[in-house]
Amino acid sequence: MITLASDFGSPYPAAMKGVILQQSDARLVDVSHDFRRGAVRESAFWLRELLPTFPPATHLAVVDPGVGTDRDVLVARAGDHTLVGPDNGLLVPAARRLADDVDWFHADAGDPASSTFHGRDVFAPLAATVHDTTVPLDDHERLTPIDEPVDCRLPEAVVDDDGARGWVLAVDDFGNVVTNVPGDFLDGRDAIRVNGERVPAVETFGAVDPGSPLAVIGSHGYVECDVNDGRGDEWFGLSPGNDVHLDPV
Amino acid sequence: MITLASDFGSPYPAAMKGVILQQSDARLVDVSHDFRRGAVRESAFWLRELLPTFPPATHLAVVDPGVGTDRDVLVARAGDHTLVGPDNGLLVPAARRLADDVDWFHADAGDPASSTFHGRDVFAPLAATVHDTTVPLDDHERLTPIDEPVDCRLPEAVVDDDGARGWVLAVDDFGNVVTNVPGDFLDGRDAIRVNGERVPAVETFGAVDPGSPLAVIGSHGYVECDVNDGRGDEWFGLSPGNDVHLDPV
Amino acid sequence: MITLASDFGSPYPAAMKGVILQQSDARLVDVSHDFRRGAVRESAFWLRELLPTFPPATHLAVVDPGVGTDRDVLVARAGDHTLVGPDNGLLVPAARRLADDVDWFHADAGDPASSTFHGRDVFAPLAATVHDTTVPLDDHERLTPIDEPVDCRLPEAVVDDDGARGWVLAVDDFGNVVTNVPGDFLDGRDAIRVNGERVPAVETFGAVDPGSPLAVIGSHGYVECDVNDGRGDEWFGLSPGNDVHLDPV
Repeated sequence: MITLASDFGSPYPAAMKGVILQQSDARLVDVSHDFRRGAVRESAFWLRELLPTFPPATHLAVVDPGVGTDRDVLVARAGDHTLVGPDNGLLVPAARRLADDVDWFHADAGDPASSTFHGRDVFAPLAATVHDTTVPLDDHERLTPIDEPVDCRLPEAVVDDDGARGWVLAVDDFGNVVTNVPGDFLDGRDAIRVNGERVPAVETFGAVDPGSPLAVIGSHGYVECDVNDGRGDEWFGLSPGNDVHLDPV
Repeated sequence: MITLASDFGSPYPAAMKGVILQQSDARLVDVSHDFRRGAVRESAFWLRELLPTFPPATHLAVVDPGVGTDRDVLVARAGDHTLVGPDNGLLVPAARRLADDVDWFHADAGDPASSTFHGRDVFAPLAATVHDTTVPLDDHERLTPIDEPVDCRLPEAVVDDDGARGWVLAVDDFGNVVTNVPGDFLDGRDAIRVNGERVPAVETFGAVDPGSPLAVIGSHGYVECDVNDGRGDEWFGLSPGNDVHLDPV
Repeated sequence: MITLASDFGSPYPAAMKGVILQQSDARLVDVSHDFRRGAVRESAFWLRELLPTFPPATHLAVVDPGVGTDRDVLVARAGDHTLVGPDNGLLVPAARRLADDVDWFHADAGDPASSTFHGRDVFAPLAATVHDTTVPLDDHERLTPIDEPVDCRLPEAVVDDDGARGWVLAVDDFGNVVTNVPGDFLDGRDAIRVNGERVPAVETFGAVDPGSPLAVIGSHGYVECDVNDGRGDEWFGLSPGNDVHLDPV
């Protein structure tokens, strides 16, 4: 199984699929091709949350604002999973979530046909190649072990008696604002302040009227700032990377 | 084969796929993940039209504004098809279209990891479980037969000599307005009035100039109010659920 | 393997998949369903670039503003690939790219259930039928050999010492403007004028600041007019089919 993720939208993912299918009859599964353009850190969050739901697979992911520059090509082995993509931090949180010990490699990019579409010309054929697990990664001449990849830290918020100081990990398609504040911050609270605005702390969207804001423990285990039947990002004025302060009321 | 439908957009459907693939090697086919957010009735219409085009399968569908509340989990057996989703009416028109006699069950939701993403935590693993057709649904301890699910009626319009009184079932991605007026209302007519506006009744979009409105028998057998190379919903000012009166001219 | 491409968005592609899966257990791969609505020539460009990345397959493509009119149904055999779609030029550049000699056929459309959704009622079942390569295309009673299909020319730009006179083949999801000027126009140049505006000629997006325009040899081998971390179509004011003049500086 090879999963595919990118910020390509449509139709470029088809070229990656065609190239892979020339080499392999692996099952292909799309994770998403609608990651926010060039948003390496937000995409790294999504991959960390989504890839562990899959059985052992090769995961191809491309969010690559540095395409064509001298950034390296990364391959990681994390338990029974293999990850392929640019060495810009994108894959690191997912790989570390998938296994305690990760083996990291740089791959020779060869002489790609284009300087702007390494998804098709470098990453897809590489994913099809390393997907053949009868060949250990150490035996691939194109791969060189490295100590540490370019990192992409997704630290959790600082929480103390005064409240939580964190930031926005992601905004999903519903407009839900995913913070990096662990969900147990809401334990025992009926309401909190989000950057000064008081909102109810609830267990489900349906606990407030449509159009009303709320704080809830989201499906990733973090506090989310949402609006029932509306967009939390607009109501709270928050985007990925923004600071968010959660305070008791 | 397991089909997937939701209003999740991207990337949450990937989590449902990952969870299913942990349990099953079934073929996965996306129906749509772009149903209008929380639009149970419009989504129920699409499922009724789309699921019968498939061979026997397990159909997982999640449009679930009541996620985390006490709404029940529904499993239906309709002929050789099995349907899984929230008991909010979403699956009922499709199930009744697939078979004259439908067996309905409630499923024990267990203790889901989240209160906001039952697609991943309840419905996907349940779909993978009931997809194994070697176990009759009656033998699943989690399933309890029920008499009737929460209903979602999609009645046809009232048509008489004075015209048709109906409503808008759906608006598709092209902006085409699908009414619930049977298409034979257009038989023998060159034009009709749609909420008072006179438009030509034609057989194909190409029969009118680009940008011009028309009424046509759509692919679901109903009268559609469309614009050639334009958006009918904007021209006619119609949205799903709106009343629509079709009159002779 | 059957690939699917259309301008349908969602959810109509699911009906094509369901119909195919009733007849065939072929692997289904989406090329794109987000081609610009009714944009036959731009879609023909994408198909020409994308389909040759795939191994031998049946390619179903539907961008069909003339649905329900008397336009014909086309089947093409190009090497080991088979193409199915409307005879409006959509498939011709791809077929000619896939093989030097192409065999063209018209198919009897039968008596389709609708006059507006031939993707479901004509093209999908036809694709599933001709996908069975044990039956030569010549043996299908529904197929009649023809000499030439409706054409869709995608000529390259005229390039001389004074510059290049071409047009815009496509605008991709990133807003990158793909011209029909061969990429070697940029060889040895540090900058060019695009319709009079001077922009740097570079090898990668990262060579200019975010928000800045550039000309680059794109992944299709043509000059592209782009903006790093922005939309080239907006900056240059260019859409598919527009004239574009590239001049030396």
